[in-house]
Amino acid sequence: MQKRNLRYEGKAKKVFETDDPDLLIIDYKDDITACDGKKKGNIKDKGIVNNRMTNCMLKIIEQSGIPTHYVQEISDRETVVKKAEAIPMEVIVRNIAAGSMTRRLGIPEGYELLPPTLEFHFKDDRRNHPWINEHYALTLGIGTYEEIETITNYAFQINQVLVEELARSNLKLVDFKIEFGRYEGEIILIDEISPDTCRLWDMHTNEKLDKDRFRYDMGNVESAYEEVYRRLVL
Amino acid sequence: MQKRNLRYEGKAKKVFETDDPDLLIIDYKDDITACDGKKKGNIKDKGIVNNRMTNCMLKIIEQSGIPTHYVQEISDRETVVKKAEAIPMEVIVRNIAAGSMTRRLGIPEGYELLPPTLEFHFKDDRRNHPWINEHYALTLGIGTYEEIETITNYAFQINQVLVEELARSNLKLVDFKIEFGRYEGEIILIDEISPDTCRLWDMHTNEKLDKDRFRYDMGNVESAYEEVYRRLVL
Ligand SMILES: Nc1ncnc2c1ncn2[C@@H]1O[C@H](COP(=O)(O)OP(=O)(O)O)[C@@H](O)[C@H]1O
Ligand SMILES: Nc1ncnc2c1ncn2[C@@H]1O[C@H](COP(=O)(O)OP(=O)(O)O)[C@@H](O)[C@H]1O
Ligand SMILES: [Mg+2]
Ligand SMILES: [Mg+2]
Repeated sequence: MQKRNLRYEGKAKKVFETDDPDLLIIDYKDDITACDGKKKGNIKDKGIVNNRMTNCMLKIIEQSGIPTHYVQEISDRETVVKKAEAIPMEVIVRNIAAGSMTRRLGIPEGYELLPPTLEFHFKDDRRNHPWINEHYALTLGIGTYEEIETITNYAFQINQVLVEELARSNLKLVDFKIEFGRYEGEIILIDEISPDTCRLWDMHTNEKLDKDRFRYDMGNVESAYEEVYRRLVL
Repeated sequence: MQKRNLRYEGKAKKVFETDDPDLLIIDYKDDITACDGKKKGNIKDKGIVNNRMTNCMLKIIEQSGIPTHYVQEISDRETVVKKAEAIPMEVIVRNIAAGSMTRRLGIPEGYELLPPTLEFHFKDDRRNHPWINEHYALTLGIGTYEEIETITNYAFQINQVLVEELARSNLKLVDFKIEFGRYEGEIILIDEISPDTCRLWDMHTNEKLDKDRFRYDMGNVESAYEEVYRRLVL
């Protein structure tokens, strides 16, 4: 496997081409951004935590029967993945109210959502990821009816798998963001699953162990990522 | 039919109890508001236009097989309707991009939406009607799975009926907002269908014949409502 040219540098990862046209190498950075890119920072070894946690979670999801882009971890920060056609949509699943949901709807943080909810945002950085729904996704040409249905079903199933897995490490999965892509005519899970993209609370103390510590200047960001690493990866 | 006490005074209508516990009288006002209530005005005889147009449309929808609250028009501005348990949700169907959609997603006004889209907003005046979706509606207890499905299907069917009917009067139905309620265990269409709640453009000139003339200070608001009345009611 040869690493070739940089295909895309995003906010948290670099994506490289390889000598195999169907494979990419994802390289996780320590850079962190929040508030639509207005807030920037660097968390020591975050890239390692995110790479390793993502791969643990993707393997478990794959085992549950949902196809993912995971191929092979090749270093602390680098993983080979299937090169998908990314669908420009963020899929958010929520088990407990937090973040924008509490502000928009006046629901207190920590309120348990029964059943869990799901929402779509259009990945358009210039417009700060406006909300859409399955009807908009269809009209805007983001996906077909069947694709949107598959994505919705996968998202709720992934939630179930992750909630159970994280609970074993005494972590509550409050909410998370995932992305999907097309690969060989199939919908597959792509991108990352990490403390950057999940809200994770300690099961007993509700201590926040995720990017909210950076967003809301709560301190101990690095040690929160380390704690998640200790619980899930080591 | 005896008119009894005022049950609710909204932004555009008064709702009265009657001597029949299952019926209400809706009394359409000339008051007009926009921009989440910050902009206020009064359009001469708007109440008459809205009452009569609503009733014409509700009869056609009822004939197409979708239950509505319509019972009987009793004056220029007053109509007897079934007293429903209102579902606190605005259902918006769009055929052509306009208004908030163009600003949120950067789609030019006038762009034809294929297929038409649909969205839900939570009727919470304190929070300026935040967007929700069917998953949120379920989690927030706004409706059951079956109710939300029925409402979605009805909304698209009502769109078809209205598009065809309005086209006969050379009116393009750009978008519209409807509300639903529960009555005797069934979902029924309630509230109004008028130039306050629909965007209506002349089929050939695209002249705006609706509340946007008030929202955007375009002038000739009263004559636009009159023109719709002439085309649809007379
Ligand atoms: N398997 C994959 N195939 C193609 N693109 C992917 C894959 N996995 C992730 N991506 C894309 O690569 C980018 C990852 O870098 P990131 O720093 O998260 O970017 P962004 O700032 O756009 O979120 C994202 O745009 C994501 O959609
Ligand atoms: N058939 C009905 N049964 C019960 N409530 C209704 C019915 N039709 C309309 N309503 C409700 O009556 C009110 C109509 O008044 P309006 O001035 O439009 O109020 P608002 O300012 O709340 O939109 C709305 O809240 C609407 O939900
Ligand atoms: Mg990203
Ligand atoms: Mg109203």
